Amino acid sequence: MKREEGSDHGAVEAIRSIFYPQTVAVIGVSDSFQRVGYNLFESLLFGGFKGNIYPVHPRLKTVLGRKVYNSLSEIPEKVDLAIIGLNEKATISALKECGKNGVRGAVCVAGGYREIGEEGEGLEKLLQEAASCYGVSFIGPNTLGFINNEIDLNTTFYPLNLPKGSASFISQSGGLGLTFLHQAADAGLGINKWIGAGNRSNFTFTNYLSFLGEDEGTSAIGLFLEGTEDASSMVHRASRINKPVVVYKIGRSDKVSSSTLTHTGTMSGSYQVYRDIFSQFGLYTVDTIMELIASLKAFTVSALPGGAKIGIMTHTAGPSIVAADMLYSRGYSIPELTEDTLKGLYKIAGENPPIVFQNPLDVAGMGFETGTFKDYLELFAGDPGVDLVLAIYCQHKNWRFPSPEIIQVKEKVKKPIIACYPSPGTLLEKERPLLECHGIPLFGTPEEAAWAASALVEHAARLGGRSLT
Amino acid sequence: MKREEGSDHGAVEAIRSIFYPQTVAVIGVSDSFQRVGYNLFESLLFGGFKGNIYPVHPRLKTVLGRKVYNSLSEIPEKVDLAIIGLNEKATISALKECGKNGVRGAVCVAGGYREIGEEGEGLEKLLQEAASCYGVSFIGPNTLGFINNEIDLNTTFYPLNLPKGSASFISQSGGLGLTFLHQAADAGLGINKWIGAGNRSNFTFTNYLSFLGEDEGTSAIGLFLEGTEDASSMVHRASRINKPVVVYKIGRSDKVSSSTLTHTGTMSGSYQVYRDIFSQFGLYTVDTIMELIASLKAFTVSALPGGAKIGIMTHTAGPSIVAADMLYSRGYSIPELTEDTLKGLYKIAGENPPIVFQNPLDVAGMGFETGTFKDYLELFAGDPGVDLVLAIYCQHKNWRFPSPEIIQVKEKVKKPIIACYPSPGTLLEKERPLLECHGIPLFGTPEEAAWAASALVEHAARLGGRSLT
Repeated sequence: MKREEGSDHGAVEAIRSIFYPQTVAVIGVSDSFQRVGYNLFESLLFGGFKGNIYPVHPRLKTVLGRKVYNSLSEIPEKVDLAIIGLNEKATISALKECGKNGVRGAVCVAGGYREIGEEGEGLEKLLQEAASCYGVSFIGPNTLGFINNEIDLNTTFYPLNLPKGSASFISQSGGLGLTFLHQAADAGLGINKWIGAGNRSNFTFTNYLSFLGEDEGTSAIGLFLEGTEDASSMVHRASRINKPVVVYKIGRSDKVSSSTLTHTGTMSGSYQVYRDIFSQFGLYTVDTIMELIASLKAFTVSALPGGAKIGIMTHTAGPSIVAADMLYSRGYSIPELTEDTLKGLYKIAGENPPIVFQNPLDVAGMGFETGTFKDYLELFAGDPGVDLVLAIYCQHKNWRFPSPEIIQVKEKVKKPIIACYPSPGTLLEKERPLLECHGIPLFGTPEEAAWAASALVEHAARLGGRSLT
Repeated sequence: MKREEGSDHGAVEAIRSIFYPQTVAVIGVSDSFQRVGYNLFESLLFGGFKGNIYPVHPRLKTVLGRKVYNSLSEIPEKVDLAIIGLNEKATISALKECGKNGVRGAVCVAGGYREIGEEGEGLEKLLQEAASCYGVSFIGPNTLGFINNEIDLNTTFYPLNLPKGSASFISQSGGLGLTFLHQAADAGLGINKWIGAGNRSNFTFTNYLSFLGEDEGTSAIGLFLEGTEDASSMVHRASRINKPVVVYKIGRSDKVSSSTLTHTGTMSGSYQVYRDIFSQFGLYTVDTIMELIASLKAFTVSALPGGAKIGIMTHTAGPSIVAADMLYSRGYSIPELTEDTLKGLYKIAGENPPIVFQNPLDVAGMGFETGTFKDYLELFAGDPGVDLVLAIYCQHKNWRFPSPEIIQVKEKVKKPIIACYPSPGTLLEKERPLLECHGIPLFGTPEEAAWAASALVEHAARLGGRSLT
């Protein structure tokens, strides 16, 4: 039986138990490397989970050099979590076995339930009944599983190596969830928890949001959504979470059980309704996986600005104009600088500066030298009208990046700064750790930097109850 | 004097001479590594240009171990191109010297002309007059210069290492142009020519488009545009070029000489007019630098489809739904499969396939094994209703990517295929050369793959005069 609204506290406790087990069993382990059961076990081992891991199979003796247990009852200690790598029918029996042996949490990986139609729907009901009768909570079915990166627990059958951090993600789709993880790792976005929600037979999106909303390791939540029947309770719950919730919603209709998509007109209509409701309830909507990652990076690395006015400084105009263009088109303010700031900037520039100072501020060739870049940035960021600064520096092999200087300025003016270094990826990777551990998210394109600024300003306005216009 | 419309042939010849010099002089070389003159010379050497390079400075003896010439007249052979790294006033005299010494092409790097206001405007007129009187053609001023990657000629002061290929790019902004180059290199997009148009004092966007339109090494053209006075002749010219022209236009107004941007309302209005006109004249407009790169990758790697109907195959639904969602929202057709194709697909799946086959086609777990993936893909891509295929395969360490299989299918069905492997960047880099040398562009996200499909379909429709709806 599906959990009722209102009984959310129990659901959250159940999810938390699943995410923090001491002992894990893999039911349906295999010794063939192409089988899911083998890979579930392998990625658990590869992940480095510190608790005890028990592979279970009725006949096998060892897999990957580890003793295999022929049944759950043979395992010499209490098992907290069972990962079930069996087919859709055997999964139901396994869930009952879990209950009989005191295992209270499970992941049901198999597909073949309601997503395939009527017959599957019947099986899914049996699965829910088994869980309910035998007192087992479960994630799935039809899921890749979940990851608790905090304790190196990867229950998916994909061995992964993820940077640690405080971004958590709920994905309706396993494949899109994986795409997210790979892109996040490439962008150095630290992951805390990851949930492949699958058919949400036992827990709803609302339950998962509640769990992550309370979760200490999570500071921002991403959500990939195709469509859901608990949209109303979900947005109400999200509105009560103080953490940013970033939604990537595609136009799929709830009524379509397979991958059929509704026709364009219908789709974009209902999509717009979704977006409007999300915005009303304080969820932040994005359009691409790149924007999702930039937003979560901003939320997990940077503090929030005290207001919505954005300053952009650069030593080469183009990227600043692209960023400003995107921010203007979203209705944000890039305010004029005060007289004092302008005077100060012209003072640094000396006689006959070759350019006009304003916001966006282009200091041109004068900005190459990191000391001068810092002098300009400090004055600019200190302008009382500026709440958040986007600092752009184009890489050149004969100058180093002004990362220490940007950090010093941030610590002096105490305002959030987003760094944008249009540069090769390998160089970004080198600069990223220093900047980001000082609360300054780093991006390679002005679009990402603008998305990040947009996300921070929106969430700050939501928390402060401020209007952006 | 600015070139008139109609005299484009001469302009194209002049640009070609600038792009294919035998001998290059760097006027205003320096021995200080923080000066532009030094870096112009260094990046020329670093680039590996095979022609003779002559550094020029009135007093220096050697720079970087090379003999310095004290004037242009001292150089023992005819100089084809002069890169002038002097300030805005000295550049004018240098241009005259070029003319006197038979140098017919130049790059004027300095800023300080019309972009800074009235005084600069006067100087720019003097520059134009000098060029006209002394018979010198030039790129700039206020430019990073240009790159002819075909002959390893980099006239910018940024030493760069770019993959070779057939994408060429015209950038109104040097900084955005650099951002493009770094992103392109990271994405393995091969570059042929790159033009920092700067103030376009001597050549217009129309001239540059004409040049690249005729250029044998260029198969697709990218253009970053803030605003231009030759918009009308530019779009007319673009409409007569058979190569795809991809435009990334931001909302900056022509009337704004500095980086001030027009207010949102005005901007998006005129922006929409620009977009509509571009589309009418066959230019393809993109919204981000990521989409610009994905489009150029598609154009330079893949053949065009014979029609506008897109097939999407995957073994994990999420990414296919994201791609379909984006393609639907742009009005493209993802057609139903024929009865024959469906029969064939069910035959491969055997009894009781756990899923419903359709387009987008999700073959689920059956698709992991590359042989099976190929069997499905071959049937699917062979469907007579499908013109272009997007093939999605999620990386798993225990299975290899189906790159050889995708290539075999492409060569059999003779339709363009776009590959999408949602995977870590390092793995994409390994798979890319094989796939792309067989005409199959590879992307890591479904959004990029959809952008690529969209670009190919639009350009094919433009050339074929077909309607997409």
